[in-house]
Amino acid sequence: MRAVRLHDYQKPPAVEEVPEPTLSSPLDVIVKIGGAGVCRTDLHIIEGQWAEAMGPQLPYTLGHENAGWVQEVGEAVTNVKVGDTVILHPQPSCGLCLACRAGRDMQCSDAVFPGVSNHDGGMAEYLRTTARGCVKLSPDTNPADVAALADAGITAYHAVRQAVPLLPPGAVAVVQGAGGLGHVGIQAVAALTAAKIVVVDRNPEALKLAEKLGADATVLADGDQVEAVKELTGGRGGDVVFDFVAEHGAENDAWAMTAPAGSQYVIGYGGELRIPTLDLVAGGKRVVGNIVGTYNDLVELMALVDSGRVTLHTKKYPLDAATEALDDLAHDRVRGRAILVP
Amino acid sequence: MRAVRLHDYQKPPAVEEVPEPTLSSPLDVIVKIGGAGVCRTDLHIIEGQWAEAMGPQLPYTLGHENAGWVQEVGEAVTNVKVGDTVILHPQPSCGLCLACRAGRDMQCSDAVFPGVSNHDGGMAEYLRTTARGCVKLSPDTNPADVAALADAGITAYHAVRQAVPLLPPGAVAVVQGAGGLGHVGIQAVAALTAAKIVVVDRNPEALKLAEKLGADATVLADGDQVEAVKELTGGRGGDVVFDFVAEHGAENDAWAMTAPAGSQYVIGYGGELRIPTLDLVAGGKRVVGNIVGTYNDLVELMALVDSGRVTLHTKKYPLDAATEALDDLAHDRVRGRAILVP
Amino acid sequence: MRAVRLHDYQKPPAVEEVPEPTLSSPLDVIVKIGGAGVCRTDLHIIEGQWAEAMGPQLPYTLGHENAGWVQEVGEAVTNVKVGDTVILHPQPSCGLCLACRAGRDMQCSDAVFPGVSNHDGGMAEYLRTTARGCVKLSPDTNPADVAALADAGITAYHAVRQAVPLLPPGAVAVVQGAGGLGHVGIQAVAALTAAKIVVVDRNPEALKLAEKLGADATVLADGDQVEAVKELTGGRGGDVVFDFVAEHGAENDAWAMTAPAGSQYVIGYGGELRIPTLDLVAGGKRVVGNIVGTYNDLVELMALVDSGRVTLHTKKYPLDAATEALDDLAHDRVRGRAILVP
Amino acid sequence: MRAVRLHDYQKPPAVEEVPEPTLSSPLDVIVKIGGAGVCRTDLHIIEGQWAEAMGPQLPYTLGHENAGWVQEVGEAVTNVKVGDTVILHPQPSCGLCLACRAGRDMQCSDAVFPGVSNHDGGMAEYLRTTARGCVKLSPDTNPADVAALADAGITAYHAVRQAVPLLPPGAVAVVQGAGGLGHVGIQAVAALTAAKIVVVDRNPEALKLAEKLGADATVLADGDQVEAVKELTGGRGGDVVFDFVAEHGAENDAWAMTAPAGSQYVIGYGGELRIPTLDLVAGGKRVVGNIVGTYNDLVELMALVDSGRVTLHTKKYPLDAATEALDDLAHDRVRGRAILVP
Repeated sequence: MRAVRLHDYQKPPAVEEVPEPTLSSPLDVIVKIGGAGVCRTDLHIIEGQWAEAMGPQLPYTLGHENAGWVQEVGEAVTNVKVGDTVILHPQPSCGLCLACRAGRDMQCSDAVFPGVSNHDGGMAEYLRTTARGCVKLSPDTNPADVAALADAGITAYHAVRQAVPLLPPGAVAVVQGAGGLGHVGIQAVAALTAAKIVVVDRNPEALKLAEKLGADATVLADGDQVEAVKELTGGRGGDVVFDFVAEHGAENDAWAMTAPAGSQYVIGYGGELRIPTLDLVAGGKRVVGNIVGTYNDLVELMALVDSGRVTLHTKKYPLDAATEALDDLAHDRVRGRAILVP
Repeated sequence: MRAVRLHDYQKPPAVEEVPEPTLSSPLDVIVKIGGAGVCRTDLHIIEGQWAEAMGPQLPYTLGHENAGWVQEVGEAVTNVKVGDTVILHPQPSCGLCLACRAGRDMQCSDAVFPGVSNHDGGMAEYLRTTARGCVKLSPDTNPADVAALADAGITAYHAVRQAVPLLPPGAVAVVQGAGGLGHVGIQAVAALTAAKIVVVDRNPEALKLAEKLGADATVLADGDQVEAVKELTGGRGGDVVFDFVAEHGAENDAWAMTAPAGSQYVIGYGGELRIPTLDLVAGGKRVVGNIVGTYNDLVELMALVDSGRVTLHTKKYPLDAATEALDDLAHDRVRGRAILVP
Repeated sequence: MRAVRLHDYQKPPAVEEVPEPTLSSPLDVIVKIGGAGVCRTDLHIIEGQWAEAMGPQLPYTLGHENAGWVQEVGEAVTNVKVGDTVILHPQPSCGLCLACRAGRDMQCSDAVFPGVSNHDGGMAEYLRTTARGCVKLSPDTNPADVAALADAGITAYHAVRQAVPLLPPGAVAVVQGAGGLGHVGIQAVAALTAAKIVVVDRNPEALKLAEKLGADATVLADGDQVEAVKELTGGRGGDVVFDFVAEHGAENDAWAMTAPAGSQYVIGYGGELRIPTLDLVAGGKRVVGNIVGTYNDLVELMALVDSGRVTLHTKKYPLDAATEALDDLAHDRVRGRAILVP
Repeated sequence: MRAVRLHDYQKPPAVEEVPEPTLSSPLDVIVKIGGAGVCRTDLHIIEGQWAEAMGPQLPYTLGHENAGWVQEVGEAVTNVKVGDTVILHPQPSCGLCLACRAGRDMQCSDAVFPGVSNHDGGMAEYLRTTARGCVKLSPDTNPADVAALADAGITAYHAVRQAVPLLPPGAVAVVQGAGGLGHVGIQAVAALTAAKIVVVDRNPEALKLAEKLGADATVLADGDQVEAVKELTGGRGGDVVFDFVAEHGAENDAWAMTAPAGSQYVIGYGGELRIPTLDLVAGGKRVVGNIVGTYNDLVELMALVDSGRVTLHTKKYPLDAATEALDDLAHDRVRGRAILVP
């Protein structure tokens, strides 16, 4: 089958022929990929930013944001059957450790992250996952239309979901970064709260999209964005600031945009946060790191999609155009999310 | 009356005669001081660290950790009467703003912080506060024995109280700093949870006290404390780390001691926290700033004292020895808390 | 001034002349009434259902759902001034007891409930309340348009607000009773959650209104409503059932409509709930009693009104037509809420 | 092997020979029983109270409170191996449904409850469960000493764990029933809170045990227990009432013992709760049904046992004396819990 393979860090991946995956345990599931999202994390993987933490043996197949159809199941699989349309939680979990037993899939002590850790991902015709990775969808869903929810979506949703109790009517949510994750985040805030939504982005097109998706106010990130957010919020800032950027100084802007007693949710990454402990204490503020989300987060997000509250904005590419898609993302030429379709 | 007055930053305060305070509004209360705690924040005030944020007009009277007896009340005061023994919430709040209406006294939009903001504190014979600052105590309580709960106690308790849901049986709480706040914090963790308690301090005497107060394990802060905590916790660190130091690098040690999906509670201050956003995200960790606590926190803490679950370790000084007490604190010669007794 | 006075239980109140109220403490506020809602509780008061619990001395003035303009303030009042437009929390609280300090106004140990307890209510030209009863509104608000939020609104909102964590996307909220409270409740569920909303009422007109306000499905309470709700929810029932009726058997229907692990919020009253403890245990279900709400609930609800997410449906009557309004309510001739305008 | 088999409702079970269980799926685990608790639910099963809800085909083996050693494992089992000492969650769950994915084992949509539902229980030499039913213990644990935690313990612990946020220092917890469940409940309240603990039981011996386990006050259930509890609590009652009885009127006593804004946790069963909705509303009170607990509840409870905070009081019987043990329980002749040892 065709697959997008990373051979060397700092070099573009190659699209080439590899053998199809096969079942290796009673709980395994083989999925025929219908769509695989292209994520900023793919750029970070290629740069080598995850090499130490994840240690994949190169070459391997990228792609951690996948949806498709069940092709084959192990003998102990009971929740899906061949032919089912599915979206895949990016980190199939063991179901036996304490974190799994508490519903916190991302803290599974036996974690596997296909396309990130040392396991082949979904930028290919087929992917091996497990029963616990599969969320069954209505058969009339086109996987390519929803694949971006499998990582960008769930991650944005998870952060918003945690913050709902902090966003009663009258509160202010600031969303920094209205790209692949942010454009889902805006819709999730609008669906789950009645807070005022202020969106910050450096790209005017992204801000136009944000307005359509539920932003009450938008701020161009032109260097004065912290002051602009303060001005829009009576000098306070956001009760919650969702930082989908968190690099190149945006992470410290996000802190400055956070109101007293407020919370900064860090979802993007790459920068370094620097906070005087006096500011943490005097402000009674908090910073919360977010990594993907739970299986049930993904199920809930699909319910928002089904009821029309969340709509994905995607740009589709054939699998063989993977390099072009990665390049478009790197140069900010994608509104919403790029999707590879095998 | 006698009072401890700060005339110039960077210079020791003077003990001198000043007029007694008088009632200025229907909700005011004049308290005869029975004990006033000496806090690291007093050192920071003298250094000028709070000058910009609080802007007190010098000279003024220090002392934000007070207990005593009601001397006089305004006409609208209904919760205490002359002669009542009281401990004082350090920041009497307005009772009308949204934060007050939610029970979050420290976020009161009309905040007054005697001894810190531009209002005379309690290192004196008398102090002016308001009805909402007074917690009534049993008449047989000696104010000097409990005064340290009014700030060190409430602050430590507030942080622990927030963290209780994160500390089920089997979890690990790390307490960094077993001094004035920390020694209350250890007892509060032991009273409110069944978590394993690991205490870190650079002073062996403080660690001995910690063991008596409920520590399951202690670690000398000799430079290898992060590794030592990791070793005691199977490589994970604390599910919650209470950082009562948060300066001179301890703040970054605290982060390193925090387990995946764990929380760092920042209570001390002075240093700068530096965290790569990748670490926040990959670890799914959080940092929480804490400032004092609510009125009800103080009431609950007094219930812990009444039932013998929290005991203060104090060293008493006459009011005129204020400079000596401050000096002892600055040079780490106080176990527990120094108290001035007028 | 004119006022609606109850002289005897079981008899209609009289509209008659009484002296205007005057300030009695430094925190008092006199409000010129712009609108006073007519509530099913007024019918219950007239029937004598609250006589024992509240013990008002007859005659007294009814009306616990009020909005208007500040006419006069006591010397210690700082949050409103003469001329301000205000909506009134129905139970001005002391601000000093533990419940007040936790933000739970309704559990104030020194509670006063004008128009219900032994204090004159707002079906009159003027009412005496206190600073802690006043929520300041934009000057262009017509008090008669929003008065119904002061009790019907806050009560419905409070119940919904508590239940938000139980209503993630994909969950089902059942609203039983789409009258004065219920029609606000439906809108609050729609504003604060993405749950599916099923509304049950015996009146087809109320169901038509419910559909306009956000109901996803409606069920006529014709005797088969429990089965109908089950059918609409895959046999499960509602994850949350808001029972705005809770009399004449509706309270037990509500229990039967509640899904396993679900919650029944009791807001109406009058009936007796009967539940085998085996059903409570086997179902892992819960029942939650609700009484009015907090000051901040009312502030948040006004934010929902300001953003257009909650709209009141009212029928206005002159003060002298109070008896007619009460009669219309008793005979189910009011959609939304009846309002008396002095 | 020997097993305790129920042939007919209303008749004592027989101890007789049956075939040993065998593996039937890749995730199955066969456990050699070291101890099986005898529970009031066994009496209720024999009475036929669960016949309709659970529909087991008679005869079948009783026993839903089990611990022992792993005898054999299916090919997909990774969390335990042959020879491991284990305590068993009473309801092995599927790990794939939404409830399992949220950590709520008891709401598993594919639930199996050996010894209660149509599956053989553990009053036998061997039991078949699954990987998700096994909690691994230290090898030096004697299963007979801890078996009672598998149902009585987890159930009491689960209720207490839910109620912790409602029991700050100064609050009152009332425990009604100090038997098999209650005596664990008392210890769990003492371990996880600093609340005042009031224990109610009709048996003076049970109250003596309660005092040793942490009760601050005890009340003999002699008919005046509601008044006695009120008197001990300043007329308020318990902020939380744990009702481990919930039959013969105790369920309505528990309601009467619950303070305004308080919560009644129903854990026992058999009676009918009758509450005027006016009382629910005016009091702002709640009633919470509890069924067993989660896997992680059991893990946490074992941590409390390991640290000496929970100690079981048991009375051991040989398997062949099952009828005698059931009879002792029925006639209130067991303090703590009866355990069958094969």
